[in-house]
Amino acid sequence: MEQIRVVKIGGNIINDDTLLQDFLKDFAAIEGKKILVHGGGKLATELAVQLNVPQQMIEGRRITDDATLKIVTMVYAGYINKSIVAQLHANHCDALGISGADGDIIEAHKRDSAIDYGFVGDIDSVNIEKLVALLDTFGTIVIAPITIDDQGQLLNTNADTIAQEIAKALSHDYYTKLIYTFEKTGVLLDVNDEESVIHKLDKAYYKVLKKEEKIFAGMIPKLDNAFQALKDGVAAVYIGEAKDLKDLIAGNCGTKIVL
Amino acid sequence: MEQIRVVKIGGNIINDDTLLQDFLKDFAAIEGKKILVHGGGKLATELAVQLNVPQQMIEGRRITDDATLKIVTMVYAGYINKSIVAQLHANHCDALGISGADGDIIEAHKRDSAIDYGFVGDIDSVNIEKLVALLDTFGTIVIAPITIDDQGQLLNTNADTIAQEIAKALSHDYYTKLIYTFEKTGVLLDVNDEESVIHKLDKAYYKVLKKEEKIFAGMIPKLDNAFQALKDGVAAVYIGEAKDLKDLIAGNCGTKIVL
Repeated sequence: MEQIRVVKIGGNIINDDTLLQDFLKDFAAIEGKKILVHGGGKLATELAVQLNVPQQMIEGRRITDDATLKIVTMVYAGYINKSIVAQLHANHCDALGISGADGDIIEAHKRDSAIDYGFVGDIDSVNIEKLVALLDTFGTIVIAPITIDDQGQLLNTNADTIAQEIAKALSHDYYTKLIYTFEKTGVLLDVNDEESVIHKLDKAYYKVLKKEEKIFAGMIPKLDNAFQALKDGVAAVYIGEAKDLKDLIAGNCGTKIVL
Repeated sequence: MEQIRVVKIGGNIINDDTLLQDFLKDFAAIEGKKILVHGGGKLATELAVQLNVPQQMIEGRRITDDATLKIVTMVYAGYINKSIVAQLHANHCDALGISGADGDIIEAHKRDSAIDYGFVGDIDSVNIEKLVALLDTFGTIVIAPITIDDQGQLLNTNADTIAQEIAKALSHDYYTKLIYTFEKTGVLLDVNDEESVIHKLDKAYYKVLKKEEKIFAGMIPKLDNAFQALKDGVAAVYIGEAKDLKDLIAGNCGTKIVL
């Protein structure tokens, strides 16, 4: 089975030009097919401040009104997506940059919940035939976290979840590795101690740690995504620091998630 | 030979929600493979004003410094490109939205001229194999006028020229029609009289009209592009009003450019 890597890069790396540059150099050097899913983070917030568009966050999710949707579409699908494509090009990797809204690649619906998140999407399905066709032509795809519903409404969508759903869809055709990169060395037993990384985290241990409240709250959705991905057929999931991408891909560092 | 339509939509249509909506409905309904190349226009200028980034235009071209490049990348490749994709989706047309910088589709270089236009690109080549692969998978492609040089520098690039270069590259494999749409009914003998449209404009007549200064200055680069496209193998070129797209495609209105 051909191998593919789906890598998620978090907002804190994107905010730091040097970290991002080093990360993209390593990403460009990955052999074989690969997908990079990026978030946006601080840049969207900064633009919102400049444009006097008040931002409201609930449980780490951005409440996305009309003006905010315009901002995240500009920043995620425009500036960040194309800047990443440009830097990969400088590293001899010709990536195709798209959003989840393009070509009906990701079908989503507006989140239906007690809290009104506005134009926030939850994913229904990934169009695997079209994604595979893109991978066959370009080898490397960069995906911005904007999706679309069946009425043509753009939706701001969690990048961790996009990475998980894409890895799941690809796992039928490829030996798929899903790698979440962020600013920590992995899942930490003590959030203030980068040395406390858990090298292997299985579901049973995760339950114990959650019960003992030893898992940093912000990590829980990411870990839930990771376990779901494994359950859905993804071959391996790693969580670790963006600067360690090469070692993460080789399985030499970070936290390996196992069922 | 299979037919393909390359349509350019101008900034003044993009600025008008109703005109754009009607245009995209007609565009979505075009049967067969098609490419839409869009400009940006006023929206980028408006955002520049909001962000206090002074704009300078020379001969209708935007001087593109670092801050302006960021703005046009956000507006063209982000907001406008994805809004068009979303509206086409609402009209049951699943288009892939990209920029010329993606997947090395369009190779360009920074303009080398007496006037320093900043990060403005001139096109070297179109990667036809990759573009054809995208058309085979998606049928409809929407292209934002951002390109890239071999060092990974993003470049603001004239959308008329992108449409022309793409039509030229496609004309080897397809019977290619190139349609420039804007807010006028066609090339006018009298710029203030929409009834004065020239139905057929050949090179000899164009020379006469240029000599007599009867061609509106803003039309000259568009017409030079149009004649060049025909010389390069494009089957037919029409210039006309965006609201007449259906009739333009049928060859029933606007100005037909012939060698």
